[in-house]
Amino acid sequence: MTEGETSSSSVGIVTPRVFRHDADFELQCGRTLPGFELVYETYGELNADASNALLICHALSGNHHAAGYHSPEDRKPGWWESCIGPGKPIDSNRFFIVSLNNLGGCHGSTGPISTNPDTGSPWGPEFPPVTVKDWVASQLLLARHLGIEHFAAIVGGSLGGMQALQWAIDHPERTGSAILIASAARLSAQNIAFNEIARQAITTDPNYFGGRYREHQQHPNLGLMLARMVGHVTYLSDDGMRQKFGRELKSGDPSVAQDVEFQVESYLQYQGRSFSERFDANTYLLMTRALDYFDPASDFDDSLVEAVASTQARFCVISFTTDWRFSTDRSKEIVDALITAKRNVCSAVIESPHGHDSFLLPIPRYFDVLGGFLNRVYADADHAN
Amino acid sequence: MTEGETSSSSVGIVTPRVFRHDADFELQCGRTLPGFELVYETYGELNADASNALLICHALSGNHHAAGYHSPEDRKPGWWESCIGPGKPIDSNRFFIVSLNNLGGCHGSTGPISTNPDTGSPWGPEFPPVTVKDWVASQLLLARHLGIEHFAAIVGGSLGGMQALQWAIDHPERTGSAILIASAARLSAQNIAFNEIARQAITTDPNYFGGRYREHQQHPNLGLMLARMVGHVTYLSDDGMRQKFGRELKSGDPSVAQDVEFQVESYLQYQGRSFSERFDANTYLLMTRALDYFDPASDFDDSLVEAVASTQARFCVISFTTDWRFSTDRSKEIVDALITAKRNVCSAVIESPHGHDSFLLPIPRYFDVLGGFLNRVYADADHAN
Repeated sequence: MTEGETSSSSVGIVTPRVFRHDADFELQCGRTLPGFELVYETYGELNADASNALLICHALSGNHHAAGYHSPEDRKPGWWESCIGPGKPIDSNRFFIVSLNNLGGCHGSTGPISTNPDTGSPWGPEFPPVTVKDWVASQLLLARHLGIEHFAAIVGGSLGGMQALQWAIDHPERTGSAILIASAARLSAQNIAFNEIARQAITTDPNYFGGRYREHQQHPNLGLMLARMVGHVTYLSDDGMRQKFGRELKSGDPSVAQDVEFQVESYLQYQGRSFSERFDANTYLLMTRALDYFDPASDFDDSLVEAVASTQARFCVISFTTDWRFSTDRSKEIVDALITAKRNVCSAVIESPHGHDSFLLPIPRYFDVLGGFLNRVYADADHAN
Repeated sequence: MTEGETSSSSVGIVTPRVFRHDADFELQCGRTLPGFELVYETYGELNADASNALLICHALSGNHHAAGYHSPEDRKPGWWESCIGPGKPIDSNRFFIVSLNNLGGCHGSTGPISTNPDTGSPWGPEFPPVTVKDWVASQLLLARHLGIEHFAAIVGGSLGGMQALQWAIDHPERTGSAILIASAARLSAQNIAFNEIARQAITTDPNYFGGRYREHQQHPNLGLMLARMVGHVTYLSDDGMRQKFGRELKSGDPSVAQDVEFQVESYLQYQGRSFSERFDANTYLLMTRALDYFDPASDFDDSLVEAVASTQARFCVISFTTDWRFSTDRSKEIVDALITAKRNVCSAVIESPHGHDSFLLPIPRYFDVLGGFLNRVYADADHAN
């Protein structure tokens, strides 16, 4: 983007800020962090009675930079630029949008690459395991710092949707609505298995050094690349990959054995390598663990109905036809539990060939559902004024 | 198995034999092997007019040892013991069953671990790429060596089914019937992507040494373990994994961060490690390449109908409801092409929760279909006598 060229539908230039919590923070695992920092961005303006706040919760590899640009020269907008901005489904003209990098992340919030004050060295593998519940608790501290006692909406895809669900359970009175996109009330054994393969790829990389790779001036890039490749393939649908790559050979000649032959291979390698250069391996391990352990029903005798019985949020649950990693059945489980518990829920199954990745794409019917739901949220918040 | 304990439905003790082809053998890639050896087993007796021969084609990680035991002390039967033997669906009282380790394998047939006569060293990564067509050509040489000019049936699951299909296309007059189980006329982009992840895991293992690991007294066990884990997860169904593992924790305490926590992880690691100790990494690369390149329609202007137009075999095409790696749709493509080409085909979709692995399991309806089809094959072969 060059100066003055800010698109009218972009939030434009944004500057990340840092919230510092200076007291002990007890984690679900029983360990205590001696304070922490969260990096975050905001888009739009908080209204006088702070009734228009909206929280964006990120997924496995996301961060705080969801929309806009960091400088006039910046060519790459935030990861959800298509959805967040003036007049967009998540409308920055209406909502005060808060987007943070979660605790344990590697983009500015306290995490494995931060310094452990007790040792003066990076936490590395000693960083405590963090759960979705911990994220919600830390997000509440950030919200209060910003003068927000109640969110009009909490929105997230995949692991982000899990945070929205946990908010509605842990803080019924603070969660006006919860939008869960391509998410699940807990992972399946297959999902855990894919995460385990990703973790094995990282921890068996000889540059992993038991997680102390930074002290050896190394990073397990190959392992993280493989981990990302596994994720990437499973986030796409078979149909979507067929449309995108078919079986096209990179060279026309199958008799020549090359390292890379099918286009899909070359694409996956590029994506995996690029990811491994911008993400921290210990954070990836931590995030996949948070995914695996998420199971709010486990606090309620394994009953999801009981888990959501005391929620007060209006729910919107969205899933995509070809998403096989977080299938429409997983969303239906949530919807069924909410209906059984007589909660307020609307849901949509969106036709899309793009698998789990659909939640990041500007699919018209998806954005219609999301924007329509948020219209009503805004009208109600406005009416309350 | 202890002596005298041979199950009445087992072929009992079998001894692998070796067929040596002592002339040049031209491969599809244009390179020539200066002869080769194939290790094989046979079960049952070839009848006087050699009309009861049945060929078993193995899948990615299979070998020649499909049934019986190698010694009285042997406790582990061949990989398809449930299906092959006296009175079993593939009945050794009726058929002369031939089962071999394919060219490029690592269980006795010429492959990457064999010595390259030109150099006196193991072939390693220099072993030429081998295709399904090459396998069929080498299997024909073995058949002739055994006095077989015509197979009553050629049977294979997964990659094995691809060989059965290629036989029917390349040698219509020699293929009485072809049984294709959980197979496909070619891989999807998703399947190729999973194979690519497996190959990346192997070739980025620092013990891979560009494929020359044996010269360093090493083996890329970790990479091969990861490759197998990817395969394993994708060969099971989500439902099947849920039934087998659910989300059971190995330790009851999710607050303790361990290396292995969910039972599914421990199972996958064990299976992967065990596989890496008995399989050669270069062979795994070669086999996945053969899978990726298989595409008989490509010789017929991308028309599968044209590819099967000259086949004479009676086809039986079997698939399994929860197999998502070689889905029922892939089998249906083959059946549709055969019907359009007015070929003789019967097909069955078998209800099973076990994903792609179903083809190795003694599922009653599956064995009924297989046994019933082979009953007719045998009756016709017998009638011809």
